Amino acid sequence: MAKVNVGPNAFGYPMPMSLVGTMVEGRPNFMAAAWVSRVNPSPPMMAVAIGKSHATNTGIKQQGSFSINFPGVDLIKATDYCGLVSGKKTDKSKVFEVYYGQLETAPLIAACPFGLECRLIDTVELPIDDLFIGEIVAAYTEEKYMTEGSLDVRLMKPFLLTMPDNRYWAVGEVVGKAWQDGRDLRG
Amino acid sequence: MAKVNVGPNAFGYPMPMSLVGTMVEGRPNFMAAAWVSRVNPSPPMMAVAIGKSHATNTGIKQQGSFSINFPGVDLIKATDYCGLVSGKKTDKSKVFEVYYGQLETAPLIAACPFGLECRLIDTVELPIDDLFIGEIVAAYTEEKYMTEGSLDVRLMKPFLLTMPDNRYWAVGEVVGKAWQDGRDLRG
Repeated sequence: MAKVNVGPNAFGYPMPMSLVGTMVEGRPNFMAAAWVSRVNPSPPMMAVAIGKSHATNTGIKQQGSFSINFPGVDLIKATDYCGLVSGKKTDKSKVFEVYYGQLETAPLIAACPFGLECRLIDTVELPIDDLFIGEIVAAYTEEKYMTEGSLDVRLMKPFLLTMPDNRYWAVGEVVGKAWQDGRDLRG
Repeated sequence: MAKVNVGPNAFGYPMPMSLVGTMVEGRPNFMAAAWVSRVNPSPPMMAVAIGKSHATNTGIKQQGSFSINFPGVDLIKATDYCGLVSGKKTDKSKVFEVYYGQLETAPLIAACPFGLECRLIDTVELPIDDLFIGEIVAAYTEEKYMTEGSLDVRLMKPFLLTMPDNRYWAVGEVVGKAWQDGRDLRG
């Protein structure tokens, strides 16, 4: 073992790429975000960290809702575009076909295989980012992304982001079964 | 488009698998966790959501620190084991070779290609989970996991978890370049 401290900003683990949907000045807006995670099992909640300067933050605070859409690899260009241009300067409402769920103020992306509709529960103010915590009120997919009634990653084809090398990665093969593979170590 | 609401508990996107390290009753303890994300760029911060009933939560609150270790696929069995047994009943201090960084109360796993040492900044109390927000004070790796001075996912071989199908997945191929692939859509 020869551990080196590469500094607190070096981190290379893959994060799931998403598009956060909000209403900005009355129109649907989407920004690319990868700092996103589940945070509570019941009621199911998500957290997403977004720099305070973004138009998305104003939209979430005004509407009290947001969506988290998980694009497939066919949407890499469009997703990346949404991370390059600001909703403050650019109308991104025509980039995707949009639909609405129960909340009516959380625009969802039709082309994304999986989308979560979230009601804002709490906002944790961090030095640069707002950490938005939302309760998932609905999760949308299509039959074509499911196998035997369950979401199938192989069909959804999500992609991941690593920073600071700024690469997108596909999901690879199944390499194990959770809450099972470690059983024989219990002794 | 034929969207169906599969319910708020259905989510199939891949999350990076980690092991959270704490001191529990004076000994190193590790639990498997995938609800983990970066949340602030500067100072760099991580958030991890952990059910309140876990021994890890007591350890984090008592010590004000924790580690987040990202295992490679060679550690799937050991990682899964740490998710199956509770630190309240089982001494997990011998599962891995342990080292310490600057904080001295955040045990790190030698066999993990990447480890973050975090100082607890805030605890957000959610209905079932504590959402721990920590400032990353150091990030440890080894030269063998780096290419040209940067962490290399291909060498670290992290793995991902999907729920509720409870599968572990390898990271696949590079499929794009972030903040670049969408440039020609800017018009």
